[in-house]
Amino acid sequence: MRVRDQKLIRAQDVLAKQLVCGDMTGKVVILMGSEKDLEFCREIAKHLKALGIEHDFRVASAHKTPEKVLEILKEFEQQKIIYITVAGRSNALSAFVDANTSKPVIACPPYSDKFGGADLYSSLRVPSGIGSVLTIEPEGAAVAAAKIFAVEDHALEKKVIEYHNAMRKEIEKADESVRKTK
Amino acid sequence: MRVRDQKLIRAQDVLAKQLVCGDMTGKVVILMGSEKDLEFCREIAKHLKALGIEHDFRVASAHKTPEKVLEILKEFEQQKIIYITVAGRSNALSAFVDANTSKPVIACPPYSDKFGGADLYSSLRVPSGIGSVLTIEPEGAAVAAAKIFAVEDHALEKKVIEYHNAMRKEIEKADESVRKTK
Amino acid sequence: MRVRDQKLIRAQDVLAKQLVCGDMTGKVVILMGSEKDLEFCREIAKHLKALGIEHDFRVASAHKTPEKVLEILKEFEQQKIIYITVAGRSNALSAFVDANTSKPVIACPPYSDKFGGADLYSSLRVPSGIGSVLTIEPEGAAVAAAKIFAVEDHALEKKVIEYHNAMRKEIEKADESVRKTK
Amino acid sequence: MRVRDQKLIRAQDVLAKQLVCGDMTGKVVILMGSEKDLEFCREIAKHLKALGIEHDFRVASAHKTPEKVLEILKEFEQQKIIYITVAGRSNALSAFVDANTSKPVIACPPYSDKFGGADLYSSLRVPSGIGSVLTIEPEGAAVAAAKIFAVEDHALEKKVIEYHNAMRKEIEKADESVRKTK
Amino acid sequence: MRVRDQKLIRAQDVLAKQLVCGDMTGKVVILMGSEKDLEFCREIAKHLKALGIEHDFRVASAHKTPEKVLEILKEFEQQKIIYITVAGRSNALSAFVDANTSKPVIACPPYSDKFGGADLYSSLRVPSGIGSVLTIEPEGAAVAAAKIFAVEDHALEKKVIEYHNAMRKEIEKADESVRKTK
Amino acid sequence: MRVRDQKLIRAQDVLAKQLVCGDMTGKVVILMGSEKDLEFCREIAKHLKALGIEHDFRVASAHKTPEKVLEILKEFEQQKIIYITVAGRSNALSAFVDANTSKPVIACPPYSDKFGGADLYSSLRVPSGIGSVLTIEPEGAAVAAAKIFAVEDHALEKKVIEYHNAMRKEIEKADESVRKTK
Amino acid sequence: MRVRDQKLIRAQDVLAKQLVCGDMTGKVVILMGSEKDLEFCREIAKHLKALGIEHDFRVASAHKTPEKVLEILKEFEQQKIIYITVAGRSNALSAFVDANTSKPVIACPPYSDKFGGADLYSSLRVPSGIGSVLTIEPEGAAVAAAKIFAVEDHALEKKVIEYHNAMRKEIEKADESVRKTK
Amino acid sequence: MRVRDQKLIRAQDVLAKQLVCGDMTGKVVILMGSEKDLEFCREIAKHLKALGIEHDFRVASAHKTPEKVLEILKEFEQQKIIYITVAGRSNALSAFVDANTSKPVIACPPYSDKFGGADLYSSLRVPSGIGSVLTIEPEGAAVAAAKIFAVEDHALEKKVIEYHNAMRKEIEKADESVRKTK
Repeated sequence: MRVRDQKLIRAQDVLAKQLVCGDMTGKVVILMGSEKDLEFCREIAKHLKALGIEHDFRVASAHKTPEKVLEILKEFEQQKIIYITVAGRSNALSAFVDANTSKPVIACPPYSDKFGGADLYSSLRVPSGIGSVLTIEPEGAAVAAAKIFAVEDHALEKKVIEYHNAMRKEIEKADESVRKTK
Repeated sequence: MRVRDQKLIRAQDVLAKQLVCGDMTGKVVILMGSEKDLEFCREIAKHLKALGIEHDFRVASAHKTPEKVLEILKEFEQQKIIYITVAGRSNALSAFVDANTSKPVIACPPYSDKFGGADLYSSLRVPSGIGSVLTIEPEGAAVAAAKIFAVEDHALEKKVIEYHNAMRKEIEKADESVRKTK
Repeated sequence: MRVRDQKLIRAQDVLAKQLVCGDMTGKVVILMGSEKDLEFCREIAKHLKALGIEHDFRVASAHKTPEKVLEILKEFEQQKIIYITVAGRSNALSAFVDANTSKPVIACPPYSDKFGGADLYSSLRVPSGIGSVLTIEPEGAAVAAAKIFAVEDHALEKKVIEYHNAMRKEIEKADESVRKTK
Repeated sequence: MRVRDQKLIRAQDVLAKQLVCGDMTGKVVILMGSEKDLEFCREIAKHLKALGIEHDFRVASAHKTPEKVLEILKEFEQQKIIYITVAGRSNALSAFVDANTSKPVIACPPYSDKFGGADLYSSLRVPSGIGSVLTIEPEGAAVAAAKIFAVEDHALEKKVIEYHNAMRKEIEKADESVRKTK
Repeated sequence: MRVRDQKLIRAQDVLAKQLVCGDMTGKVVILMGSEKDLEFCREIAKHLKALGIEHDFRVASAHKTPEKVLEILKEFEQQKIIYITVAGRSNALSAFVDANTSKPVIACPPYSDKFGGADLYSSLRVPSGIGSVLTIEPEGAAVAAAKIFAVEDHALEKKVIEYHNAMRKEIEKADESVRKTK
Repeated sequence: MRVRDQKLIRAQDVLAKQLVCGDMTGKVVILMGSEKDLEFCREIAKHLKALGIEHDFRVASAHKTPEKVLEILKEFEQQKIIYITVAGRSNALSAFVDANTSKPVIACPPYSDKFGGADLYSSLRVPSGIGSVLTIEPEGAAVAAAKIFAVEDHALEKKVIEYHNAMRKEIEKADESVRKTK
Repeated sequence: MRVRDQKLIRAQDVLAKQLVCGDMTGKVVILMGSEKDLEFCREIAKHLKALGIEHDFRVASAHKTPEKVLEILKEFEQQKIIYITVAGRSNALSAFVDANTSKPVIACPPYSDKFGGADLYSSLRVPSGIGSVLTIEPEGAAVAAAKIFAVEDHALEKKVIEYHNAMRKEIEKADESVRKTK
Repeated sequence: MRVRDQKLIRAQDVLAKQLVCGDMTGKVVILMGSEKDLEFCREIAKHLKALGIEHDFRVASAHKTPEKVLEILKEFEQQKIIYITVAGRSNALSAFVDANTSKPVIACPPYSDKFGGADLYSSLRVPSGIGSVLTIEPEGAAVAAAKIFAVEDHALEKKVIEYHNAMRKEIEKADESVRKTK
């Protein structure tokens, strides 16, 4: 089959799917372990907005209110959702959420290099079978979420590509600018 | 709307979508920076198989053969793909791939606690705008990939839930077993 | 009041209390996150036995089976209990248990110096209001538990003192032995 | 025996014990290695007060005035006491106190992440037979002490449970609050 | 052959070479991964100027604009060039440049002791066959570049020796000065 | 000027220079602080040989025999030389050599991740004005040396490029091989 | 022999020695690698003065002016001297001095917890046969020097004991003071 | 005064002192916290013997038997003594001994790079006024002790110089040997 035909067929697929699931755009639930991290969560939200993705803020602690966490997971069970979990210090929340949902879980603990960054290991040294993944940049968490939804959402896929292109243009411009510098 | 009705409608949605995109099951491309990491990649593949997800193995180095990496990305551009990138030591591959594709990228560097685990920071301290995410467990990478595809694939979502349930049963059994121990 | 009188009165107190609560000797629940840590838990149990303290072994995961953990806590709610929690890697179990019980919680994660000991921080960097405490030695966990029960149990208090004395005698003997060495 | 009966009997036990040992409420001795740590110790005291537990402040150095430490231990030998030991840098005090008393010892060194937190290891890498346990949070030390006394003191046990409940309510309120935020 | 004769012949060699390659003085390309590091790069440039070495500033990202990096390398292929690569966080740029040029590559990441200096390992833990070398001091990068050109450029060699002598004189003067201090 | 002409002129330059300095091929002096590191130095030598570069082995300690180090530097003063300095533990040798010669100095301490790699900092935290640079791979040290000589030696430049190409082919082959694997 | 007699004889010994070597009081040479550390050296000097010990300040760099260091060592060869060596970053000075003198060498690098304290290892990971010892406290360096001279100087020994006693009294006073605090 | 005269006078001084204090040769007390470290202590003793210095082995724990430590210190109070203190893990012994004696104290903890070497900080982060100094090499501890006694003992001073010379000759021989190697 020629490339042009492939593209045509693919375009039709996309169209057909848009008809069927067009109203099911995804959403990110930013779940924080403590209200103290709200400012950091807003940073994530800012980047999600730039990528055109909706979000909800929620607070629940895996240590202190595990049943509340489970209720929230239940609440979103039937929705098209990605969790971005935000918990500082010893991060139990991310793996806890991951073990109790089939939704993707992106751990994005608030930036800290205390104790040489030892807190990060609490997000990485998860038990067997846990699929939560880690990024330490709010923008990174937003981009990762966008890419996950973009697996099916071709409009979003385009936005991610544009986002990349903007990054590249910025570097081109910077190169032009510094070359004149001495 | 009552819960029962919601479920019914949802089931119909799923059916409709199955008809439209039933043949578009996703695949994981396990991209390693060096053939030395093949054994580690097989471990990831083992868990992908257990979850019923196909995979391809590829080798390319962001440092040494950047153009080859870009070609591989091009090759998979039109496919439903998640990248699991495997690169030890200083991991340039994961962020490199992420910056040049709209597909999700899961960094899963081969396990090493050399230099107190300092290599992990090369996967985490990525530049602005990069969405690659990190897990240090092969099983974790497979589960994360499964969850991403499961956002749209309800059969796979079920499998993830069963996977979780199996984990839980194992713990129940272990509890029974140790209680008899003194 | 003279010291002798104080001692007399105190002896009577102890006697009276023995009559009332003599049958309420405490027990340690060694709760592990995974059966893999059973060998390590047996080491703790060995030292508890040496101090004459009973123990139960249990398995439950804060990440994977939080509700089971809560059930176990409920099960022991009315008993005179100290928890020794044993969870490797990212230790969510100890703070989780602590937040959901009024019993003392001693975290004793299996010995590991991977990643420069970074895992230990997951036991220390607990959220506000958490009272779980950390020791990395199985014998230390047993002695700490003994001391907690000994606050009220004067027979056990005596045992702890004897335990200390035995430690001291060992050092005395060692000194005698090495002095002859050249 | 039915649960109701158990509860009844238990209530009687508690009453009987209250009569016998009602006047023997415990106290925490906050022993610091240097007066410089007084501010940090006041933080611990604040949380003890919130939990209704009395405290004494004392200063003695395991390195410089070991005999004074031993005298203080002697002074409290006949009392219902928990030690919270506060010593920065190389913490000899906690294990020293622990080896020379049958009372529980909670090490709570003043917060420092100098040298990547290396000082913490001086509180953890204790010799064989030492039962001192570590927390790095003043509030944590207070809660741990409360839980130890609560093993026998049912009024205090209730306070701990209320303390927990207050923590939970705070999280519930925070969740309500952030949900309205965008 | 006597030392004097050796020196004579050597002087003639130098002269002959000066005639042939006198117009081929080298240049340093300071390639930064982001414009944010310009200030740090200026610091390097300051020391290059002090040693009489020309430089160009360029911006390109190994992660985001690998093809641009390759173009820059092509641009300088026929020139007498040393690269000083400046990339913070996870440094892919230095090894990337090194693998794709035959020119010497000196990695000089912007000074950071975040996470206990873990970022430095991304400059050191390079794949097999990579020859980029690391210094963390802007002045050090300039001196290293000067020494490389000085292998053939005897005028520059002299400058390096004078640079050393100035360092030594400073120390002599400091010694004089502190000796009078009490 | 057209590219072809540029190349022609350049070829002539090279020829002219070859005539003049053809007999002045460079050499690497591998200077180790202790004979214990000879095996590691042989590894460096192996890669130098593969690149067609001659080497000398020498032993001298900056701490113990500083005058001997200075003598060796004197011995090679008139030669076309690069130093690769090999000193484990606290590496004084590299910066010492660098401060006392105008030749390039590549520090290549024997591989060790003891104390979380802390020894590496003794090679990096050099005083002001020091131009020694660090690599932790014997092959990397050899490639770096080759690139320095290749600044003037076009035959060697070619060899470096071939070396790179061989690396790339190996990756191509590995990719072919793993693609057939499942 | 009775204790009183022993003391008497000892007093006579001391007297006799005082007559013979009374004019040979020792001195500390504070040798710094750079004038930048003068402020830190003054701190050491302050404590030496408090203990009645004379000092000289000197500057010389093991890396940059090794011959000057050797000259200084020669200068003091016939004197009763202890070296306190002060060099930040990669400390070559202390082991260098130690290897080239028979005098005691106390390394006291300026306080820094950069890179998680990695610089300290350059003072500790010394080559075989090196006897330089490390303290990170200026007061500690002064006390250590005092104790070394006090091996023979009984007047100084007394001063050290008084110094200790003053430390103890301070703690006693602090205890009195905090006991009144609530 | 001419150098020759100075030397003459100095020789007479030495002779006179030899007469007075000739019988007062010093001794090293190797005090270990646990008999487990005896093998490591023997290593220290081996090097002391090579330098002609006597030693005693003793065992006492600062944590467990502080009064025994104080007794040992008393026992040696009137002797010419240096302490080498050997205590693994959290080293309380060295600073404890230092605070309670006027004798020099050299901490030489058994070699361990567990937890990235964190134990070493327990030897370094000593309280104000403590003069114990650290070396991690048994040979280093012996050489340091020799140098301290050599401040007054000129025969020993000579031995230290010979020891140094032997080190140097070894390096000379190694250089000869490796130069022939290719």
